[in-house]
Amino acid sequence: MEWDPGPPPNIRTIFEAAPLAAYQAKPKRFRLEWGPHYYRGRLDGSAKALIVGQDPAADENVARRILVGDAGQRVQGLLQKLGLARSYVMVNTSLYCIYGQFDPELKAFTDVPEVAQWRNQLLAALAGPNIQAILAMGQAAQHVVDTWPGAAAFTAAGRVFKMLHPTARPEPSVKKDWNTHLAAIGAKVTADADGHRDLSPYPTGSFIQQDLADIPLRDFGFGAPAWMGTGNMATRLQAGKVPTMAKKNSTILWCALDKQG
Amino acid sequence: MEWDPGPPPNIRTIFEAAPLAAYQAKPKRFRLEWGPHYYRGRLDGSAKALIVGQDPAADENVARRILVGDAGQRVQGLLQKLGLARSYVMVNTSLYCIYGQFDPELKAFTDVPEVAQWRNQLLAALAGPNIQAILAMGQAAQHVVDTWPGAAAFTAAGRVFKMLHPTARPEPSVKKDWNTHLAAIGAKVTADADGHRDLSPYPTGSFIQQDLADIPLRDFGFGAPAWMGTGNMATRLQAGKVPTMAKKNSTILWCALDKQG
Repeated sequence: MEWDPGPPPNIRTIFEAAPLAAYQAKPKRFRLEWGPHYYRGRLDGSAKALIVGQDPAADENVARRILVGDAGQRVQGLLQKLGLARSYVMVNTSLYCIYGQFDPELKAFTDVPEVAQWRNQLLAALAGPNIQAILAMGQAAQHVVDTWPGAAAFTAAGRVFKMLHPTARPEPSVKKDWNTHLAAIGAKVTADADGHRDLSPYPTGSFIQQDLADIPLRDFGFGAPAWMGTGNMATRLQAGKVPTMAKKNSTILWCALDKQG
Repeated sequence: MEWDPGPPPNIRTIFEAAPLAAYQAKPKRFRLEWGPHYYRGRLDGSAKALIVGQDPAADENVARRILVGDAGQRVQGLLQKLGLARSYVMVNTSLYCIYGQFDPELKAFTDVPEVAQWRNQLLAALAGPNIQAILAMGQAAQHVVDTWPGAAAFTAAGRVFKMLHPTARPEPSVKKDWNTHLAAIGAKVTADADGHRDLSPYPTGSFIQQDLADIPLRDFGFGAPAWMGTGNMATRLQAGKVPTMAKKNSTILWCALDKQG
C-alpha cells in the first residue's frame, strides 16, 4: 500500500489561502458543486517535472486529484517515456471544472490579481531546486506560465516547454507536438531510479493504449479502488440519459449535495 | 483544512495483510468491484469509542471511508450526544459491500479462520488503552465482538454495548434501543474537549434531521467536497433507471473499471 497523504504543512497553508471566493462569484463559468481540485503528485519537493494543465473533469471530481482520466493517462504516458515514475507534480490553471472553453472571460479571470498572485505563490512553492522542467500544456497553462515571474529563470535555462494540451484536437496533432519536445525535455530531466526511459517518438495517429500509462495508486488518497486511473471511469449525467459505459459497468450515481463543494 | 491522512504504519501493516482473497473467492456475496473499505476515524490510538458496523454501501464506496451515509450520520448523531467530536474509530464486519443479508453463509464467512484471525488482530490493535467503550451495532457486529477473545476484558468492565444497527427496521425501534444504552455508555465514555454532550433521549418515532450529525470533513481523505457526509449522496444504478435524486442534483456516473477494486 502506497498512497498520497495530502499536502505537507507549507503547501497546505497555501491551499488554505486559495481564492475560492473569486471562483464562487462566477457560478456560470465554474462547476462549483464539485469543489476545488488542487494537484496530483509529489508536494514534498521531490518532483523533477512541474506540469501545468487546464481544469479537472468528471474523473478528477471522483478521484479528488487532477489529471487522472483521459488527459491524465496521456500525460502519464509521457512521464513514463521520460522515465518519471513518481518525481512529478501537477497543478491546473483552474481549481474548478469550467463550463465552456478557456475563452477571453476565463483568461481575464486568471489575471484577476488575487487569482494570479495566489497561483504564482503556489508555483513558486512547487518550483523548488529539484524542478528540472516545466511543462505548460495548452493555452491556459501557457498563459499561466507566461504571467508567472518565476518562470523567467526556467525559460532562460531552456526548461519551459509549451506543449499542446493532452486532449487538444485533432489527437494526432498532440502526439506530433509532443514528439517535437521529447528529446529536449529528456535532455533536461533525469529519469527516476525506478523509471524506464524510452524517448522513442509516438507513432503517428490518434492516441492508442500503448501511448497511455495508468495513474499510480500512490497518487490517490488512501483507499482508492485498484482500477482507479486505469481508464475512463466517470461521466456527467446529462438530460437524465445513461451512457453506454454506465449500462455496461457496475455504476454508482454520485449526486452533489450543495451548490458549493 | 483538516483531513484524514490514511493509516499510520502499524495499522497499515495490518491492512496490507487483510484476507482479500477470501472475499474475492465469493463474488456472489461481495461487491468486489468497489474494493475493500477499512475504517473511519482515528487510527492513532486516540479513539475512546470503537464502533463495529456491518458493511459499506454506495456512499461509502464514493467516500472510501465507512459509515458516512445514512447509517453513518445516525451513528455520528449518537457520538455527538456522547460528546465525541473526534475520538472514535469505526470498522465493519465485512470489508466489502455484501449482496443480500447477513445470513448464515456470511456468518460462517466471518468465522473462516483467516478472516476471523485477521479481524481479531485489527480489533486488538484498535482497542488500545484509550478505548472506553465498544459499540457493536447489529447482529453481524455483535457476532464479531462475541468471537473476539479481546472483548472479554471490556465485557467484564461493562464497556461492551450491543445495539441495533443504525438502519435496522423499524426505525423507531433503533432510537428506542439506543435510548436504553445512552446513560450507560455516557457513564463509561468521557466527552471530548470540543464535544457537546447531551444525553437526552431520542424522541420517539423515525429518524429526523435533528437526530443526525454531519460527518466531519476531517474523517475523509484530502480534497473531499465540503458537502460530503451531509446527506445521502450516492446510489447504485439499477436496471439503468435514474433515481429522482440524481435527476434533481448535479450527478456523476461512476463506473467500476474492473471486477476487483
